[in-house]
Formats: sequence, C-alpha cells, structure tokens
Amino acid sequence: MPSKKSERTQKEPLGEFALIARYFAPLARGFPGAYGLEDDVAVIAPSPGMELVAKTDAIVGGVHFLPSDPAGLVAKKALRVNLSDLAAKGAVPRAYLLDLLLPEGVEESWIAAFAGGLGEDQALYGVHLIGGDTDRTPGPVAIAITALGEIPQGRTIRRGGASAGDALYVTGTVGDAAFGLRVLKGALAALDESAAAFLTGRYRLPEPRVALGPRLLGLASAALDISDGLLADLKHLCEVSRLSAVVEAPRVPLSPAAKAAIAVSEEGLAVALAGGDDYEILFTAPKSAASALARLSRDLSVPITVIGEMVRSVDEKHLPAVIDESGREIAFSSAGWTHF
Amino acid sequence: MPSKKSERTQKEPLGEFALIARYFAPLARGFPGAYGLEDDVAVIAPSPGMELVAKTDAIVGGVHFLPSDPAGLVAKKALRVNLSDLAAKGAVPRAYLLDLLLPEGVEESWIAAFAGGLGEDQALYGVHLIGGDTDRTPGPVAIAITALGEIPQGRTIRRGGASAGDALYVTGTVGDAAFGLRVLKGALAALDESAAAFLTGRYRLPEPRVALGPRLLGLASAALDISDGLLADLKHLCEVSRLSAVVEAPRVPLSPAAKAAIAVSEEGLAVALAGGDDYEILFTAPKSAASALARLSRDLSVPITVIGEMVRSVDEKHLPAVIDESGREIAFSSAGWTHF
Repeated sequence: MPSKKSERTQKEPLGEFALIARYFAPLARGFPGAYGLEDDVAVIAPSPGMELVAKTDAIVGGVHFLPSDPAGLVAKKALRVNLSDLAAKGAVPRAYLLDLLLPEGVEESWIAAFAGGLGEDQALYGVHLIGGDTDRTPGPVAIAITALGEIPQGRTIRRGGASAGDALYVTGTVGDAAFGLRVLKGALAALDESAAAFLTGRYRLPEPRVALGPRLLGLASAALDISDGLLADLKHLCEVSRLSAVVEAPRVPLSPAAKAAIAVSEEGLAVALAGGDDYEILFTAPKSAASALARLSRDLSVPITVIGEMVRSVDEKHLPAVIDESGREIAFSSAGWTHF
Repeated sequence: MPSKKSERTQKEPLGEFALIARYFAPLARGFPGAYGLEDDVAVIAPSPGMELVAKTDAIVGGVHFLPSDPAGLVAKKALRVNLSDLAAKGAVPRAYLLDLLLPEGVEESWIAAFAGGLGEDQALYGVHLIGGDTDRTPGPVAIAITALGEIPQGRTIRRGGASAGDALYVTGTVGDAAFGLRVLKGALAALDESAAAFLTGRYRLPEPRVALGPRLLGLASAALDISDGLLADLKHLCEVSRLSAVVEAPRVPLSPAAKAAIAVSEEGLAVALAGGDDYEILFTAPKSAASALARLSRDLSVPITVIGEMVRSVDEKHLPAVIDESGREIAFSSAGWTHF
C-alpha cells in the first residue's frame, strides 16, 4: 500500500513531472489561471454576468474504446463527450481538467499522441487544459475529464423545461454511431466501404455541437445530448419535463450511409432510434421559434430537424411514442421494433 | 467495443440511474446548481468578488489504497487529497465532481459505504457532490475527484510568492503518514499499539487544513500542501519562487508517536522529512506575520511551527538545505540522511 504521490513518481518511467512539463504544460498555455500547470490548483472566473457549468465523464480502455485505438482519437473522444454536454445546455466551453490513469508499459509515444489529440481539439473548440493528475494503474488506460464552460446566469437549458405543444428537434443525423459500432464489430458486411468508413468515423469521433449550443439560448425550452440513444434520452427529457412525446419516425434525420445500413440491416430504423453515441442535441422549442431555428441552421450549416412534438402524459411513465408514416404507433421490444 | 453509456447501464447490476438516485443524488441536496444530479451538468457561480479554484486528483486501488480498505475511508481519502490542495491555496471548498470506476462484482454494500463516507465528509467540510459519472472497468476501483472552491479574486496563494528572509512554516506534525505506511507494511514492530494506531490513522485519513487555509490569505507569501514529502514539496516551492531554504531539523514538528517511531527506526528523522502523505500546509510568510500566525494557531488549535527560512539560491537547482542543532548541514543519500 504505497503512498499517494511518491509511488507514482517512482513508477513512472519518464517521471510524472517531466511528463507534465513535456506534454501537458503546453496545453495550458494561453490560460493564465492554469499557472502553466506549475501550481497545485487552477483559477477560473466566469465573465461578468456569467456562471460556470461543470460536467465530468470518464472513458475506460476495453469498455468505451479499444486499447488499440489511436491515442489521439481516444483523447478527443474523452474530451468531446464532455464538451457535448456543455453544448447541449447552451454553455461555451472554456477549460478542462484531466485525470489520466496509465498502465505500466505505456509508451511515451502513446502519451505524445494522446496530448497531440488534445492539442488539436483545444484549437478546434477553444478550450485549455487547466489541471490534471497522472497515475499508475494495474488496470487499462482510463481517462476522466471534467469540463468547465460558462453561460449567462440562470440560463442553462435544462432537461425539464419543455411544454406540451413544443416541437421536438434533433441536430445532424442520428444512428450513425450505432451503425458504426456494428461495422466495427464485423456486422453490415454488405455495406460499401465509404459508407462504412463514414459510420465508424461517427462512432469513433463525435462532433459536439459546440458552436450551435449557445445559440439555442432563448430558443430551446429543454435540451440534452444524445449519448444513450434518441429514445432513451428523450425519455429522460420527458421524465423531468413530466410530459410525453410523439416522434414521427419518417422525420428522423438519417445520413445516406445510415440509410444504406438500414437497407442491409435486419434491425432497421430501431438502431437509429435506440443506438447511442450520436452526441447530437435533442431539444424542444415553442413553435414560434421555428423560423429563428431555420435561420440558425442555415447560418451554422447544422441540420436542425423537427421530429415530433411534446404532448401531455397519459400516465406517470412519461414514455415517448414513435409513429410511422400513417400515424400508427411503433412499439419497442427487446427483439427490436414492431408495429402494434 | 461497446458504446459509451448504453454498455455501462447494461452491465451495472443495480443500474447506473438507480445507483445514482439511491446513493449519490442525496449528496447533491442543498446545492441548487447540482439539479439533484438529474440534469447533464451542474452550475456554479463564485460569490461576488470571488473566483473559483479547481483541482483534480485520482486514487487507484492497489496503488493508492488497498482493495480491502473500508470503502468509506477510501471515499474520504479521495475527497480529502483534493480539499487539501484547495486549503493550501487559501480557498474555501464548495463542491466536487466524482468519476467512479467500478470493477464487475463490486457489492452494493461497498457503494453504500463509499457514499456514506462522502456524506460524512460533506458535513464536515461543507461541500456537495454536484456531478459525476460511474463506469465499469476491468481494472481495480478508481476514483477521480475534481474539487471546486472559491477565493477572493487574484488572491490564490501561489508556490512562487516567497521572498528571501521569509520564515518557513509547517502546520501540524510531519512524518506520521510515512511512519504509518511503514507500520502497515509490517515494519516498526517495536512500536506500542496506540502509537502505531495513531500513525496508521494519519496515513489512512489525512485531515486537510480546510479551516486554516483561507485564514492564511494576507499572511502567507507562498504555500502548498505536503503530499510528496516535506523536502520534495519544499523543493517545488523553492523552484517556483527561485529561492532556496534552510530547514532547521530540530524544529521540525513531530508527534509523540513519530518520536517513538524514530527511536525504534533505523531511518530516523529522514522518514519525517522525505515521507509523503502528511497533507499539512507548508508555507512561507514575512517575519512581520509571526504574531498574527501565533494568534491564528491558538484560535484554530492548529499547531503552526517555524522550521526555517527562505534564502537566496547559490545556483539554479534551488535545493533546500537541512541543518542540525549545531548548524551543520545534513545531506541526503539514497540510503538515508548523513552528516557531511
């Protein structure tokens, strides 16, 4: 039972301090309150009239990514799943803290690529590393990131703000990541190469809607990002809003690749509705916001699609319903989706 | 390569959402911006005139604690190592986020005890859980905590603020944790039972100086907490302050139990100076602050001891020196400490 810090510095071949100085301190440049990672804490103040929004999420080798995945990609995914939550709530991301658990024998090149991935995403999303901790683990690589963003005081877009009659929107396309995961598992062999590459890319590297999210303030009444799956996350939104929702299946936006996958898949649309990891924003808005949302969609070149409507609940389960092109309800079973 | 969230909810016997509702949501009560852990983010704003201070630190089973350690104790240690950093910088702790990686087969009773430990420390230190993530891991239990505190704007006590001539202070006693670790490893068998219990207690459960830290604002010129060891951490302070320091060995505050351990140990005082995990505050202050610090020590019943002085560096190494009762320098070697 060794001690907290002395042990890890002894075990780390490069040395914890050298590793921080070489690969992580450069990621703190440009954020004065990070003190170049040379101090024990970071300092961060929201801009006037703003408050901070915090989110933490971890990913683990062999659970959320393969140990063989490129380190830069792993780093980006770890960061992006957090940025996605900030975006869905309307926050502008500013900084993050990183806990990096490394097994014995991780190559310095892995760490270099990992930090390189973070650096690329920092430039892309305008965030900085402001603090962190590296530790040895007898387990697989694990990465916990806590992201901090800012938002005008009291304006966070909650899960529970929807009203009956609000339209239900989703950004981008859904189902790509779930089909991508199936491709990576060896399924969907009939799919052409470029479609397969598109889908696996969407699984491996989500694109959080960082530019869009803050523009939804004043338009969206409730929002969250799709990580568990469109219907699962919609259920969360319904529960907290104490409402139900009707999703029109034909309106659900699908990429050409996802459509191709559905054509060769036995599971069909169910994958797009139930599969996770899309990291698109699912939100509700009063119908009066429709034209503003259409403009926003054009301005940012982000598809924003109405897929249904919020409705009063018939019971305390607040279950969303999915209807087909003729208005018939489609029901979920563990074997997939079936018509009543 | 399963997906980020769907997989962990499938694998978690209790279910991630049930686990959060039962054990973790109660820890968010009393902090409105945590939204009862029902939303995707937490919101936190510093009080007027204040800014936020952030720190993250992880602990891993088999590295920083034994898998057999009581879960409540593990939880407290994970939280306290972070609170200690906030305290050493002068910040008042307010909230924390938790990433909890759990291996297959962790009992619900373990999680209950873990959350129970957090709850006890929340009451003790006035902090709240405001966000978190639980995930499966094929490795050991790992806990990453990001603690957030607040401090008057621009007032964080840095590592680099010391001046030559400043007195060097330490709170409490040092070396207890290092001796405690030796006891846990089966050494120091000649030590009586109560001394051994005191020392192992100090190793297992640090007491961050949360009440004292914010009171050091305006008094301390530089500070950090002792986690790597008194001399190693003093070296960090010296490097950033671009100074050296002289530590008078006879002044180093030792508990009666540590003195008893030194009496039966071949390593002697070196353990107290080099051993880590004390989580006391090491700080510098101008000599004019002496009487205010004496009053503060009495008010809070926290020993604050002068152990030496900051001096100009003779070279770029900024190495602190340790002198004995007759002013002779004591030198460190890998075998322990020896006189020149």
